Amino acid sequence: MAKEKQFVEQIADIETDFPQWYTDVVLKTKLVDYGPVKGTMVIRPYGYAIWENIQREFDARFKTNGYENAYFPLLIPMSFMTKEAEHVEGFAPEVAVVTHAGGEKLAEPLCVRPTSETIIGTMYGKWVESWRDLPVRMNQWANVMRWEKTTRPFLRTSEFLWQEGHSVFATAEEAEAETQKMLRVYEEFAKNCLCMPVITGRKTEKEKFAGAVATYGMEAMMHDGKSLQSGTTHYLGQNFSKAFDIKFTDKDGAQKYGHTMSFGVSTRLIGAIIMTHGDERGLVLPPPVAPVQVVIVPIAAKKEGVLEACAALKNGLAEAGIRVKLDDSDNSPGWKFNEWEMKGVPLRIELGPRDLEEGHMVCARRDGAEKTFVPLSEAAAGVRRILAEVSENMYEKAKARMESRIVNAQSLEELLRGVDGGNFVRAGWCGCRACEDKVKEFAQATSRVFDQTHTAKTCVTCGKEAVHTVFFARAY
Amino acid sequence: MAKEKQFVEQIADIETDFPQWYTDVVLKTKLVDYGPVKGTMVIRPYGYAIWENIQREFDARFKTNGYENAYFPLLIPMSFMTKEAEHVEGFAPEVAVVTHAGGEKLAEPLCVRPTSETIIGTMYGKWVESWRDLPVRMNQWANVMRWEKTTRPFLRTSEFLWQEGHSVFATAEEAEAETQKMLRVYEEFAKNCLCMPVITGRKTEKEKFAGAVATYGMEAMMHDGKSLQSGTTHYLGQNFSKAFDIKFTDKDGAQKYGHTMSFGVSTRLIGAIIMTHGDERGLVLPPPVAPVQVVIVPIAAKKEGVLEACAALKNGLAEAGIRVKLDDSDNSPGWKFNEWEMKGVPLRIELGPRDLEEGHMVCARRDGAEKTFVPLSEAAAGVRRILAEVSENMYEKAKARMESRIVNAQSLEELLRGVDGGNFVRAGWCGCRACEDKVKEFAQATSRVFDQTHTAKTCVTCGKEAVHTVFFARAY
Repeated sequence: MAKEKQFVEQIADIETDFPQWYTDVVLKTKLVDYGPVKGTMVIRPYGYAIWENIQREFDARFKTNGYENAYFPLLIPMSFMTKEAEHVEGFAPEVAVVTHAGGEKLAEPLCVRPTSETIIGTMYGKWVESWRDLPVRMNQWANVMRWEKTTRPFLRTSEFLWQEGHSVFATAEEAEAETQKMLRVYEEFAKNCLCMPVITGRKTEKEKFAGAVATYGMEAMMHDGKSLQSGTTHYLGQNFSKAFDIKFTDKDGAQKYGHTMSFGVSTRLIGAIIMTHGDERGLVLPPPVAPVQVVIVPIAAKKEGVLEACAALKNGLAEAGIRVKLDDSDNSPGWKFNEWEMKGVPLRIELGPRDLEEGHMVCARRDGAEKTFVPLSEAAAGVRRILAEVSENMYEKAKARMESRIVNAQSLEELLRGVDGGNFVRAGWCGCRACEDKVKEFAQATSRVFDQTHTAKTCVTCGKEAVHTVFFARAY
Repeated sequence: MAKEKQFVEQIADIETDFPQWYTDVVLKTKLVDYGPVKGTMVIRPYGYAIWENIQREFDARFKTNGYENAYFPLLIPMSFMTKEAEHVEGFAPEVAVVTHAGGEKLAEPLCVRPTSETIIGTMYGKWVESWRDLPVRMNQWANVMRWEKTTRPFLRTSEFLWQEGHSVFATAEEAEAETQKMLRVYEEFAKNCLCMPVITGRKTEKEKFAGAVATYGMEAMMHDGKSLQSGTTHYLGQNFSKAFDIKFTDKDGAQKYGHTMSFGVSTRLIGAIIMTHGDERGLVLPPPVAPVQVVIVPIAAKKEGVLEACAALKNGLAEAGIRVKLDDSDNSPGWKFNEWEMKGVPLRIELGPRDLEEGHMVCARRDGAEKTFVPLSEAAAGVRRILAEVSENMYEKAKARMESRIVNAQSLEELLRGVDGGNFVRAGWCGCRACEDKVKEFAQATSRVFDQTHTAKTCVTCGKEAVHTVFFARAY
């Protein structure tokens, strides 16, 4: 018991020291480790397996929406970055630059891609000739680099993994519609695969992607009430098609520039999962992306037939497509319970001599519901049902929590009180940059997205007429 | 007809200008394009889909063999590279170096990984403590960079995609056995997924991986009789564990260095497929990795019921897990036949009013067998059977070809005649570097792998006793 207690005590208290809790959890559950170069992380197998599940789920959705995967070069000539003025201004300060290769100094320095609009735009400029070539829809799974001084695994690292989708359409309407559609794909994924409620909407000029006409974001509420930008889609207008000569001959014979859009999510989503669902015992992983959905812990493992029954159960569940692990190590059941709870496995099955006699298994849900008994003869169906219930409960719980922590503010003081209390704050905004900056200065909060339901009457800063209702929050 | 002829004439003749044939095929089938930076390639959707299939097949095999995926940083401090003397000597001349990032000059230059032994070794040194932590088996899917002056898409590019597996064992025997085992996994994959016969064996000191104790390779014979190194496994002994302090406390309480091994295959495999199976009409893709396994071409598409029947057939095949495409474009059937033949689709199905009346479909195999009729009522089973036959035939054809082009040589003149004739040449070798270099100088051929059946009596260069029988060939 002393040993078990010690095990749990290794994690800082989630309520009193959330940043340390996060660091403890990501390191101790072996999701990630710090890399040797400052700002870098190593994604360990338990963390990478979550990413693989995220990739598989997204990849299927992208393909359903007409996307094909491709791969573009890592290194981008510096001169490409400068072709779109806002873009280079936004990204130049954080790029890593290759100046030497093959033992020689390069004629032109090359950036390690921070994002690929410029190089993909260059290739699209070469490939697109006619309206028959449109739309173009491609996606890339890749590593990107944005130099950082601080390291927060998954949240802020100089290199991270992501997907970036890039499309070209003949008309602005189509490109805008796609920008909205992929935002809805993200939102649906967040709900059904991460059990994570999000708020989606357009971002302000200040917060938009460098080079975009409009950026839309999905924001999720973390345990401490801060917001995590979890995915963005960008309507790029003709900014990149003009910079990279993405032109086509339309049906009417005229040469026109295409309208482009892009969208991306990254390994940040793993951080979002951790901070949305985690509790005082550690991770709580959503069943659709959990590397291990079910762990079987034998009780009185040395008693005749127990291990055999556990192995048979494991095989049956695995055959049914459930990601299952049998923990037949030497550790005590109590130790195992703590370990797998910390690792966030959604469902623990206990199986001992008494259960075998009664022909059932004990099911303990990580999300806190009472233990239940499921007949061994209906193991796979029972587990599937419970995992679906866990998913639903995790989503509803997070949604209720988020909704209960959205408050309205009429003044900067109210806004400050709101974010201090760990809330998202809905407030009116006149649309001017100075008023947005003032919110940051006064409350250390930023505009996250516009509320599509615009109800605020006056700007929270200046009191003039509100043009938008904005969700403000402190953010990662 | 003129149009169709022109289409095929766009590809150079495979027999008289194989290098141009290769370039034509990879570009015109849209597998790949040249990137804007010299030495780089863009893998287009049709090429990337092959890589996705290769990844999926390998990934399942690696996991069956106990491997977990992880992700390690792209940038490696230059000082890590120098910890293993042979390693840095081998790779330093071809690394790309990041010297500036985040607007500042870096204190230490960082290499873009050419391979990850050094950074993964550093992390293993941190993670491995006890014999209980062993074996460690991890794999990474990643991009790597080795600076090149010339570009041959898939074969020789400064950046390419690959997998690299890295393991640590308590004993030399286990690490050596794993090196052999993963070579057999590669060989089985080559046969069953790429329909590609290979020759496997140990490499000479000259040809081994920089830092390895022993390297094993699998070599495949291309259309022109040259060899393509298609995968390698390396027994690294304690070279890297000593350099990176991968130590463990053994059962007997003693501190010992681990024994490591690594293995990798890359997007080169796509080049191997193209040059093993391609013919005068273009690509011939192996069914297990072909992006499109079956293309349906409607005949007299405007006749009532034809397109509907084609769509129904397509849906039925797709539901059966077959990768199928219906070409309902405006092009003529003849044009479509040529296009999909050039793109290497293993099976074409033709379906017209007469076929519908008779209740069958016409099946035309890309590998050249006669057209056959398959009842529409057994479409999925029939297609599966034909695809299996295509795979087997492609493998047997390539195997017979390779075997007919392995010759023995007793002298350098014979060896030269052998490689000039587009053969692999089996010859004796005394084991000394000078004799190996002499072969290169005299015949522009290199030692590929040792023949496990050592039958040669004398060295092909010096005439002294042969220590190994070696496969020599010109190589990509």
